Amino acid sequence: MKVYFDNAATTAMDDRVIEAMLPFMKNHYGNPSSVHSHGREVRTAIERARKKVAELLNATPSEIFFTSGGTEADNTALVCGIETHGIKHAITSPLEHHAVLHTLEVCEQKGNIQLHTLDVNAKGEIDLNQLEELLKKYPNALVSLMHANNEIGNLNDLQKIGSLAQEYGAFFHSDTVQTMGHYTHDLKNLPVDAIVAGGHKFHGPKGSGFLYVRKDKKIHPFIHGGAQERNMRGGTENVIGIIGIAKALELAYEDMAGHEAHIKALKKHFIEKLKAEIPGVEFNGLSGQTDKSLYTVLNVSMPPSEANSGMLLFNLDLAGISASGGSACSSGATVGSHVLRALNHNPERDSVRFSFSRFNTIEEVDYTIEKLKELYAVEA
Amino acid sequence: MKVYFDNAATTAMDDRVIEAMLPFMKNHYGNPSSVHSHGREVRTAIERARKKVAELLNATPSEIFFTSGGTEADNTALVCGIETHGIKHAITSPLEHHAVLHTLEVCEQKGNIQLHTLDVNAKGEIDLNQLEELLKKYPNALVSLMHANNEIGNLNDLQKIGSLAQEYGAFFHSDTVQTMGHYTHDLKNLPVDAIVAGGHKFHGPKGSGFLYVRKDKKIHPFIHGGAQERNMRGGTENVIGIIGIAKALELAYEDMAGHEAHIKALKKHFIEKLKAEIPGVEFNGLSGQTDKSLYTVLNVSMPPSEANSGMLLFNLDLAGISASGGSACSSGATVGSHVLRALNHNPERDSVRFSFSRFNTIEEVDYTIEKLKELYAVEA
Repeated sequence: MKVYFDNAATTAMDDRVIEAMLPFMKNHYGNPSSVHSHGREVRTAIERARKKVAELLNATPSEIFFTSGGTEADNTALVCGIETHGIKHAITSPLEHHAVLHTLEVCEQKGNIQLHTLDVNAKGEIDLNQLEELLKKYPNALVSLMHANNEIGNLNDLQKIGSLAQEYGAFFHSDTVQTMGHYTHDLKNLPVDAIVAGGHKFHGPKGSGFLYVRKDKKIHPFIHGGAQERNMRGGTENVIGIIGIAKALELAYEDMAGHEAHIKALKKHFIEKLKAEIPGVEFNGLSGQTDKSLYTVLNVSMPPSEANSGMLLFNLDLAGISASGGSACSSGATVGSHVLRALNHNPERDSVRFSFSRFNTIEEVDYTIEKLKELYAVEA
Repeated sequence: MKVYFDNAATTAMDDRVIEAMLPFMKNHYGNPSSVHSHGREVRTAIERARKKVAELLNATPSEIFFTSGGTEADNTALVCGIETHGIKHAITSPLEHHAVLHTLEVCEQKGNIQLHTLDVNAKGEIDLNQLEELLKKYPNALVSLMHANNEIGNLNDLQKIGSLAQEYGAFFHSDTVQTMGHYTHDLKNLPVDAIVAGGHKFHGPKGSGFLYVRKDKKIHPFIHGGAQERNMRGGTENVIGIIGIAKALELAYEDMAGHEAHIKALKKHFIEKLKAEIPGVEFNGLSGQTDKSLYTVLNVSMPPSEANSGMLLFNLDLAGISASGGSACSSGATVGSHVLRALNHNPERDSVRFSFSRFNTIEEVDYTIEKLKELYAVEA
């Protein structure tokens, strides 16, 4: 059996997304900026995609900018948000994705901002009182706090954070890469200034993404070189990526409650079986609490085991199970997870992130539990 | 008849490129940064693509970085070349693509560099003596001069420019978007420090590109957020884009001489017929001289005509012929071509760029000539 439980890293494309993209690979190849018929038919498709994304998020099309992915969108929001609005202080948390942390660190190294990092407790929770203290001290700051953590699944309350940000005149960016397509975002009512998406996290294509920027917080472009995206992003549009991400978001919204119910049931089953079958199992962050964490992510801290120490992911891989130790984006590096480190995770325990999609089944969970039992039975 | 003569804006994808991409849409969906089997098979494919590109260009794989397109690659080379190497002066020409001009202008506005622009004559030729004077005055500058102009097709001598740049310790970037896949680039022998590609200019996918940076001129990343591309470009890789651009480049190199001969014959035929059939026709830049210009581009300056004034592209479009007035990247803007303006082009003459690919035919040229004759016969 082959089991793919690494859907927070990337997801399989939905066949209907591929179907939507194919005509733009085979037939409609014009440059959307060209004014002739070959170009106009593609321009129409792109603007229809933008309108669809805007509708789903309750935003306006002029607030949606297509990018090459979530990381470029984060870089754009942060670097250009800071530059455009003359921001001098940024507030973030140590649990953010490197797309946010590294970008803000570079801004600080260049002397553009002073960076303030919130404390987190052992469960990865931030303290909104500390946030408010910092906002009071540094009004008109930039706040960057993710919607859900990609490793431990902790959900932040964007409504509360956004209200605080508004109160103190801050620019509020949220890395929503892990929740886009899995939760609804109602941007007329959610007090955020910038959010982002990466299409491949919800069954769309890799290399596609978008940035939402609230219309009264306009920023200048990150990539220069053309009038594309209403002068906000130079470069010929990735047409198939745009068509694909819009279709993927449409499919996600079509039955979001159904997907959530299906995946949540898998996750609950997984948690119960683990507790029953693996003595000493623990859950990192809030991922073991289904009401407080992303339903797609379960980060398991396995009991210390000599046979599996440092080998757990490898052993799972041998059993045909693809899971992850943390963010895929860092796995080229030799260092461990910065998120688990911030939580003072016991290094004697191996951690593994299982992350789910609507394509996963209860049988795959049971198979994984069986394999984990075998691996940990050695020392029982 | 539908005729696509706007191949400098973008090209139709080759069916074999689509075939190469499809398995990575349908089956191999892993994140290349994941260490499990789903990820490793994709990592292998990406590194094979990088090796193929490096081989074709006589470079090493560690010098090739995949990007979202030529514009991002240009932005990266310029912004990060300047920052990494502490460059204070940049030398360019007024005929560069906006991906270069606007990016350098922003660097100047931020106070990072002083920008020096070479003069051009009415044919769009630069003066290498002036370049040498500037290099003498400002050693260790950045030089950015394109390989071929996207509007008028003028070819720059990269060997000569690069030798001068080397002599004066300059960082030499060349926007090779219009020549990649159409001319060979032998990077062991060509004295350039950074060149770029956009896959969709040679029958690959839009949203794909790469940056070559010579190994002794390393630069830091433009987009932060992950260990991808050996820490040079954060963000999950656009896998299908990478597979597609490598395949497209492979196909281009397989029979480059054949493609050149075919397209050059079309262009020569077009020039001869225009001269014979349209009295007063002229050619912008060097595009009328097949030995001094890109064989894919012909920029025609039509005789003044009241019936066609400002309407030429529209009239051609009505006849089913897709051509362009300049760069597609600017056509969202209401201003005319900055290239023709720099050449002091007579505004009473309408200019049209016809640009060709290996998929065009002699019949399409003849059809276009017939239509142009009809349009301009009105006043004869």
